[in-house]
Amino acid sequence: MKHTAIWNAATFALAFPLALVAQGVPPPSVAPPAITSPMAPSEVVASAPAADWVAIDPADLLVMELSADARGRARRVIIQLMPAPFAQGWVSNMRALAAAHWWDGTSVNRVQDNYVVQWGDASEAKPLPDGLRTVPQAEYEVDFQGASLSADRYSAVSPNFFGGGNDPYGRSEFYAGWPVASMFVGTGLRARNHVWPVHCYGMVGVGRGLSPDTGTGAELYTVIGHAPRHLDRNIALVGRVIEGIEHLSSLPRGTGALGFYESAEERAVITSVRLGSELAAADLPRFQYLNTNSSSFYRYSDARANRRDAFFIVPAGGADICNVPVPVRRVPAP
Amino acid sequence: MKHTAIWNAATFALAFPLALVAQGVPPPSVAPPAITSPMAPSEVVASAPAADWVAIDPADLLVMELSADARGRARRVIIQLMPAPFAQGWVSNMRALAAAHWWDGTSVNRVQDNYVVQWGDASEAKPLPDGLRTVPQAEYEVDFQGASLSADRYSAVSPNFFGGGNDPYGRSEFYAGWPVASMFVGTGLRARNHVWPVHCYGMVGVGRGLSPDTGTGAELYTVIGHAPRHLDRNIALVGRVIEGIEHLSSLPRGTGALGFYESAEERAVITSVRLGSELAAADLPRFQYLNTNSSSFYRYSDARANRRDAFFIVPAGGADICNVPVPVRRVPAP
Repeated sequence: MKHTAIWNAATFALAFPLALVAQGVPPPSVAPPAITSPMAPSEVVASAPAADWVAIDPADLLVMELSADARGRARRVIIQLMPAPFAQGWVSNMRALAAAHWWDGTSVNRVQDNYVVQWGDASEAKPLPDGLRTVPQAEYEVDFQGASLSADRYSAVSPNFFGGGNDPYGRSEFYAGWPVASMFVGTGLRARNHVWPVHCYGMVGVGRGLSPDTGTGAELYTVIGHAPRHLDRNIALVGRVIEGIEHLSSLPRGTGALGFYESAEERAVITSVRLGSELAAADLPRFQYLNTNSSSFYRYSDARANRRDAFFIVPAGGADICNVPVPVRRVPAP
Repeated sequence: MKHTAIWNAATFALAFPLALVAQGVPPPSVAPPAITSPMAPSEVVASAPAADWVAIDPADLLVMELSADARGRARRVIIQLMPAPFAQGWVSNMRALAAAHWWDGTSVNRVQDNYVVQWGDASEAKPLPDGLRTVPQAEYEVDFQGASLSADRYSAVSPNFFGGGNDPYGRSEFYAGWPVASMFVGTGLRARNHVWPVHCYGMVGVGRGLSPDTGTGAELYTVIGHAPRHLDRNIALVGRVIEGIEHLSSLPRGTGALGFYESAEERAVITSVRLGSELAAADLPRFQYLNTNSSSFYRYSDARANRRDAFFIVPAGGADICNVPVPVRRVPAP
């Protein structure tokens, strides 16, 4: 066992020379603020100045209406689409599917406890609109050394919050308001910094068959349990549920294999899916997310990792990335 | 940033001298098996020999019946109580509460999405049975250097599966079939190896007020979302749901603060809670868990960390501890 521990330490030093670790996470563009007050994470978020919030373009939202629940109440789920440079092939397909109203009349077909809710065309026979792209596996992750990126989109979070930034799945950070992981792929001079979004609760991904390029974006799922991080890099993440996930996560679990429903009447019907920008002005959904490169986010991530509010006795001193969900809020029309 | 990275490496070396890291996880008593076949985790579990399964004593189960659902179907939830040396003060209270049929007629009062389902006496006025203990904060974690323990209850899992065993919350491992974390508390010769169960999906904990000794075990919760590991060491974990968690996780979310229901009719009624050993022989629930100190568990944890079944393209090379749920199965009566 001692031998193993020594081997691990040596391997760590070999695999992550300090210069490369530093290269993995560019410095945040804001100075870490002094953490003095024992605020709960929700209090940090409530006190964030307006300048630390970023508007979400309604054109980057999908608004999904399910059939009313047993008590006749409307069920609306709002999904924010993944921004560039991630997964834009599938996102482009999803915009085309929404514009064609393709999802109208499809259904929620699978609810597997502590895993995913999946929706799309249960018959698997509905013709797709023309012009959808076949997107290759290569687009599951982005080569950040080859991409055109602005440093100010990186997160203002101390790498200490994620156990030094490294977890069993790579290096955790945030980019432009989204949880991502990164890893050097290749060795030596050929090493490239690959970055991909991660499977936290509420993230939306593309169902596919065995071949990695078989998912179009018509069949989708969202995470309703502990982050299934083994799916990272194996499937495309294309968005996240920012409102109404309870309408999916509280659906009855399917009793078939993998949580698929065994009869049509169990399936919640998707009455419509629209791009946010297609809605009437009065109904236009307006949201903001907390800039992950702001002092407020730094304070928030610190408060998540070190709970100092009255209930807590022992601050954890760290947090895994999915335990630091990016705050999103609904705002009134201007 | 380079400066921070260097500081981290130095701090790591100071905080975790190799001898102490090695001391944190005693060697498993089985030799790591060769991993050759590309089996899915479920296939590894299905092929585990009978000798690798451990019977759960029905006396260590709580059987909770909820009122029938909207379609008239029974809803039974089965909870395995935490074994020694963890949290036995609260577990003893829970046995007394079940023996007194105290929970009969109480209700599920809180369902907060991606967090917890909580149940107990909504009126907070029901008299408790005599003889319940007040359990101090000290029992949230166990000093393994002071405890009488058998080495063969440690997990047969490579520490590599958890990113070297260290995550932002301490050191991850399994003990006697349960996910636990550990950390050296104190420094130098006074350092003690503290161990505590962790808040994975389905774990059951004791609701309390602001003072850490205010929870009796009458008010309970279970995790229905991403592991809220910041609760570790701050609240007592006393068991886990091993069957029927979908009856809790699919309940409608409460619309009050913290997910509490705002009206009595929203609450699912708990019609009874019984110790498994109180049930008639024909109804006695019989379960087994996969021995976490077996070759089968080693293979299973490897398969969770390195998915090799046909769907997967890139094995993660690691897993966080809550992504390696301990397999539990129902077995026929002998």
